[in-house]
Amino acid sequence: MRKIIYCVGTSLDGYIARRDGSLDFLHLRPSNYTMGPFFKTIDLGLMGRKTYEAGVRMSGGKFESYGLRCYIFSRSLPEGERDGAVFVREEPKRLVEELRKKKGKHIWLIGGGELMREFLKEDLVDELYLAIVPVLVGEGIPLFAAGFPQREFTLTESKTYSGGLIALKYERLRGKAAAKVKRASKRKRKR
Amino acid sequence: MRKIIYCVGTSLDGYIARRDGSLDFLHLRPSNYTMGPFFKTIDLGLMGRKTYEAGVRMSGGKFESYGLRCYIFSRSLPEGERDGAVFVREEPKRLVEELRKKKGKHIWLIGGGELMREFLKEDLVDELYLAIVPVLVGEGIPLFAAGFPQREFTLTESKTYSGGLIALKYERLRGKAAAKVKRASKRKRKR
Repeated sequence: MRKIIYCVGTSLDGYIARRDGSLDFLHLRPSNYTMGPFFKTIDLGLMGRKTYEAGVRMSGGKFESYGLRCYIFSRSLPEGERDGAVFVREEPKRLVEELRKKKGKHIWLIGGGELMREFLKEDLVDELYLAIVPVLVGEGIPLFAAGFPQREFTLTESKTYSGGLIALKYERLRGKAAAKVKRASKRKRKR
Repeated sequence: MRKIIYCVGTSLDGYIARRDGSLDFLHLRPSNYTMGPFFKTIDLGLMGRKTYEAGVRMSGGKFESYGLRCYIFSRSLPEGERDGAVFVREEPKRLVEELRKKKGKHIWLIGGGELMREFLKEDLVDELYLAIVPVLVGEGIPLFAAGFPQREFTLTESKTYSGGLIALKYERLRGKAAAKVKRASKRKRKR
């Protein structure tokens, strides 16, 4: 199955960007962390309108698609393909169902936190791949915008890199494994 | 020097408790993670009033001091020692200065997020020791309450445990190492 992977750099206090969209804190110290291996596993990108607009602003007015076909979720921008991106108004669930039917590599959920919340509400996220930089920035755009049902994951990989960075991979726990966790959780909450 | 160590269990989306103070999600799955080795390194606990009251509520009306001398920061409760705790109205900075002058083991900053914010504002936190459980809970009491200046740390230890848990230790970067990071950061922000 084509997986939906939320892969982002984040501060230790859970921000993917400053309020103004700037990402400077992700590169405070040199690090040998690279997204190269991850890029080989994907061939599609999904992002929200705010992330798209912040990206365009940051790169001086041009959309930087990472060499990928990118879908931009927006309720306000006109639909259709232009400027290297595909603008869609579809519900994430419907688009993801369509995309999963087509053959291809995995799908990168680029962000941001609000689109991620929609994806978590519909339980569309299969993996998390978080590069955690060792800085507390105090405020910014959240990695996980609050307001979705509880979702269990399990740690599948952790790798440390220079510059105090650690990258963690998590896989969504579904089916039997999740049911077991859910039963344990209910027992605990009743106490 | 006696270090101030913020040691807590947290959900992957950065919550130390649910809105009602409940901690059930920290124990969804059995894990061999234990705070035993950490407990041997400390002999004092510091917490905010809300964390204190949540703790008392959770343990059925009795204060659970972890066998430690505990200081409770509160602007509303009367000062003084009672029920196994020392209630203080002092500014965190002053109390920490006093405590650091006395000989002893390290000091556990138990929480919560709001007291942590005060400590970060005054740059009193020397280490973070975070046990991250692999669940997104969607809302709750934040690990790091927003609103403090940027603080650089570096990763000093990462250990995985059963149940998908990982524990990360970070040390505050101060002095020369921090100055270097700060210069790099300024250069990046100017671009």
